[in-house]
Amino acid sequence: MKKEAILHIPLSQYAYATDERSITVRIRTARNDIEECMLYYGNRVDEVEPIRITELKMDKCASDDLYDYFEVQISSDYNRVCYYFRLSDGSGEQFLYSRGFCDVMEANRTEYFQYPYIRREELLNKPEWTKNAVMYHIFPDSFANEKRGIEVTGRCFDLDGNAVETGEPAVKQNSGTAEIKPVKKEKRGFSRSLRGGTLKGITENVDYLKTLGVTLVYLNPIFKANSYHKYDTIDYFEIDPCFGTKADFRELVDTLHENGIRIVLDGVFNHCGPDFFAFKDVLEKGENSAYRDWFYKLNFPIEYKYPPNYECFAYVKDMPKLNTGNPKVRDYICRVGKYWISEFDIDGWRLDVANEVDHDTWRAFRRVVLEEKPDAFLIAEIWEDADVWLKGDQFDSAMNYMFTYLCRDFFASGRIGAEEFDEQMNKALMRYPAPVANVQMNMLDSHDVPRFLHYCDGNTDRLKLAFFYMMTAPGIPSIFYGDECCMTGEKDTEYRAPFPWNLAGGGFTKELAEWISLRKAHPALTCGSYRKAYADENGVYVFERKCPEEDLLVAVNNSSTEIKLKYKELFGTGAEAVYAPDKEATPGELILSPYGKAVMKR
Amino acid sequence: MKKEAILHIPLSQYAYATDERSITVRIRTARNDIEECMLYYGNRVDEVEPIRITELKMDKCASDDLYDYFEVQISSDYNRVCYYFRLSDGSGEQFLYSRGFCDVMEANRTEYFQYPYIRREELLNKPEWTKNAVMYHIFPDSFANEKRGIEVTGRCFDLDGNAVETGEPAVKQNSGTAEIKPVKKEKRGFSRSLRGGTLKGITENVDYLKTLGVTLVYLNPIFKANSYHKYDTIDYFEIDPCFGTKADFRELVDTLHENGIRIVLDGVFNHCGPDFFAFKDVLEKGENSAYRDWFYKLNFPIEYKYPPNYECFAYVKDMPKLNTGNPKVRDYICRVGKYWISEFDIDGWRLDVANEVDHDTWRAFRRVVLEEKPDAFLIAEIWEDADVWLKGDQFDSAMNYMFTYLCRDFFASGRIGAEEFDEQMNKALMRYPAPVANVQMNMLDSHDVPRFLHYCDGNTDRLKLAFFYMMTAPGIPSIFYGDECCMTGEKDTEYRAPFPWNLAGGGFTKELAEWISLRKAHPALTCGSYRKAYADENGVYVFERKCPEEDLLVAVNNSSTEIKLKYKELFGTGAEAVYAPDKEATPGELILSPYGKAVMKR
Repeated sequence: MKKEAILHIPLSQYAYATDERSITVRIRTARNDIEECMLYYGNRVDEVEPIRITELKMDKCASDDLYDYFEVQISSDYNRVCYYFRLSDGSGEQFLYSRGFCDVMEANRTEYFQYPYIRREELLNKPEWTKNAVMYHIFPDSFANEKRGIEVTGRCFDLDGNAVETGEPAVKQNSGTAEIKPVKKEKRGFSRSLRGGTLKGITENVDYLKTLGVTLVYLNPIFKANSYHKYDTIDYFEIDPCFGTKADFRELVDTLHENGIRIVLDGVFNHCGPDFFAFKDVLEKGENSAYRDWFYKLNFPIEYKYPPNYECFAYVKDMPKLNTGNPKVRDYICRVGKYWISEFDIDGWRLDVANEVDHDTWRAFRRVVLEEKPDAFLIAEIWEDADVWLKGDQFDSAMNYMFTYLCRDFFASGRIGAEEFDEQMNKALMRYPAPVANVQMNMLDSHDVPRFLHYCDGNTDRLKLAFFYMMTAPGIPSIFYGDECCMTGEKDTEYRAPFPWNLAGGGFTKELAEWISLRKAHPALTCGSYRKAYADENGVYVFERKCPEEDLLVAVNNSSTEIKLKYKELFGTGAEAVYAPDKEATPGELILSPYGKAVMKR
Repeated sequence: MKKEAILHIPLSQYAYATDERSITVRIRTARNDIEECMLYYGNRVDEVEPIRITELKMDKCASDDLYDYFEVQISSDYNRVCYYFRLSDGSGEQFLYSRGFCDVMEANRTEYFQYPYIRREELLNKPEWTKNAVMYHIFPDSFANEKRGIEVTGRCFDLDGNAVETGEPAVKQNSGTAEIKPVKKEKRGFSRSLRGGTLKGITENVDYLKTLGVTLVYLNPIFKANSYHKYDTIDYFEIDPCFGTKADFRELVDTLHENGIRIVLDGVFNHCGPDFFAFKDVLEKGENSAYRDWFYKLNFPIEYKYPPNYECFAYVKDMPKLNTGNPKVRDYICRVGKYWISEFDIDGWRLDVANEVDHDTWRAFRRVVLEEKPDAFLIAEIWEDADVWLKGDQFDSAMNYMFTYLCRDFFASGRIGAEEFDEQMNKALMRYPAPVANVQMNMLDSHDVPRFLHYCDGNTDRLKLAFFYMMTAPGIPSIFYGDECCMTGEKDTEYRAPFPWNLAGGGFTKELAEWISLRKAHPALTCGSYRKAYADENGVYVFERKCPEEDLLVAVNNSSTEIKLKYKELFGTGAEAVYAPDKEATPGELILSPYGKAVMKR
């Protein structure tokens, strides 16, 4: 037995409660090493000695390149649980207790792993509506104006909200991926945009979003800020004049809600912009500013130039880092978090640079937000393993760039095969408890990375297959505006290009809507288990999504060759096609055309 | 290479910051598998691509039965770090990135492990005074009364504080471990004690504690409560009348402080007692009580009997569980936490049943306590791995029962040998970051377990050797009152027996005082690294404690045979004895008598 490979961490993704009587327990073992894994558990305050023990067989729930993962759910009538494992390979067995391995069964409960108390305050439940959410991610400057199009030039306002002639064309562009000249002027003192997108423009297109079938809109920042991307906030309580007014925003939220679509806003609280009132005061008054403790590591005199002598987002002098350890700053941030919910009824926040802000700020933010709206949803921008932020006390979800990378490697570039893709996806899913993994914000691209199509060498079949996969995989699928029209681009001016309204409804928009319907109709696709059913070196990948209601098989053919999948041979005779755009050749055989896809039901 | 054994978890005990420019990084590998382990790190927001990388060799810092642990400290001039590893066994090398192993070096920083930001709010630093603290743990009812002795009967007061004749002798005892008859009367309505210990009794004996050399006193509960152990609180803002008055307590704290000794109190907030005002109200008014939400899972009508139909500590009807998820209860607890610091200047809290109370309550408690006293110390009662409570947001330390068990197994029963003891101790130390491991509350026994001597079959040499070990090992040593006089006992009435003042100064009190002095004189013993130097099957165990100031070797002979340790052969010629009660036989050779001990300095 490869004992060194075996891992169980109490009170982690390896042991978590989902209701007051249920704990999911996992254990990791070396791949193909353990034949049987049993869990033994009892009431840790049982009044008999030795305590009464229940035995459960654990199921293999995932496998990656190095490990198998076993899982089982404890359902008991008590809420203080202790447990241990028995593992058998072909040749012998071992018990695993909190102190380590043992050849023999141990009767002393203090030696067992402990789940001290299933505290109802800390159950890992997510808002019901998030479980089958489909997100549409909009970069407001580039999506639409009220004429359902995008102006060819941006806008500019001074800090009092007066429109200003910039004296130079802000942009030179026609449509799509055209080259854009950055505005050369000083950032401070103005609010600018590049492409003229507005909130009214989004409102006008809610019917488009509804037809697509999305249930959640995420907007990049819309608060008053200097740059076109609005990540350098001037005023967290104001809408940027380039994008419109508070009345416009209220109309947008109301229209979305009337159409069954929720909305999350982008909260940029790691840093502010150079015209934020507190930083302006510091620039003006230096050491005498009442706001000097609002910023992180100021040095006086302040050198407002590159490189700045104060902490910033990276080394960007126009993004000074807020001192969130200061209770006044924390309270301010919480007030913002509350304001847009209480006044405008937004449904949650995506929090920028979440991993550089202290945990207690996020905990306070969560408390305030959930007090205002108990089913609000909080998403962190964290590119790496976000486990420590997803314990339930801070965020519900994180932007899942691991998903992005894996899809790039398998669907776009083909750098990895189906087997490795499955292994890596399993590893990624096992990083989190299932309720957390199921609401990760899956993306193929975003406002911060090249469009997925860029990595496909322009092959839209690969792009479409990746989207189909995302719509059938665990996690909240997120569509970056225009992906459905096959937008591409490597540089930010390209991948944040205007939505090509002349192409609206084209690309694979109709298929995408169909896949979204498919997802929404099948609970197995949103909350079912995820297990490989078949993978081969030709790029054919079949995985099972299973929940109490149904048992589905999803097939993707990530190759340019037509393949025949003898699915009844592979998966038993009971399978029938739920979604199969390609025809069956003979009963029991499924034809998958190049980059073809299918969903079967057992 | 045994890749399956290799473990690194970002933002855990495997990667933690101790100041704004220093991160300790660890990696776990299979035992005796990896010959060289290198760490590569850079600034994750470096403005050149690829980023500039620094290489560091990692040192093997610990080994247990299955694993080696390597460690190194990054000291950089930036606070956003990314890193990866290169591991070599005899036959090949592998790079380890966040996604997994790779044969080749990867230039893309997003593939590296991330330490997103060294946030000063979250540095793992402990109060300076805790680093070389030595604790004396007192069970107040049993320690002393003002006559420097213990009355033969306990006391009883009604809830108004009037002394009450109980009509029966509360106890029958003379001294030491005599049999005690439990009080038969109803618990409610009275405050009782068994042995008549008082706060004044402790105050009178501060000189005793000072002579011993302890720097911190931990008192089991002293607030008004029904039972003699005081874990069923009636009033968190009152001193129990059996123990004395607030004036007595103030005098105790002041006397301790005047003598350089700090004090932590026992906070019992998981549950209260049956006469706590809120529970009394609930018992009286049932569903109409304004305090019904102060308790966890009440059912009406309340069945105040065994088994209770409401949540309790275990199934004890007189210990109803407080609903700490209720902000009013949380605020109440925080007020208590603050009150005894602001009014009486205590130095911290030991928190009872900490692992059954929600994390947010402890976070709030910590905030309030540290606001009042920034260097206060918080210790959790958690018997198992306490990692999730020791992240810096809740507790500084936990009662280290793993230490207790290992010492029992090696020093008391001899169930395990020196090699296994070393392995298990290493494993226990590697559970936490070093600054956390160094302030764990090490104990050989407590008010909740049989006395250590009980496990030694009465062999006081074994008890003494274990105490010597505790005084030279990482973690805050804790002496349960009377251990120094060789108190023993298996049942609670025995191990909580009165301090045998007739034997005061006897036992190994003088040696204990000497070892405490030794610990305080040698920084290596409190904050140095811990590594095995030698272990053999005869029970001889030598370990190294090393810090920048000094390099010590501690030797224990856990056997009934005299041994000769050729230490100069083993540890080089530069070693000299710092503490060696046994004489050297010849230069370079150390005689360790049965259960002998020594400290050498390189």
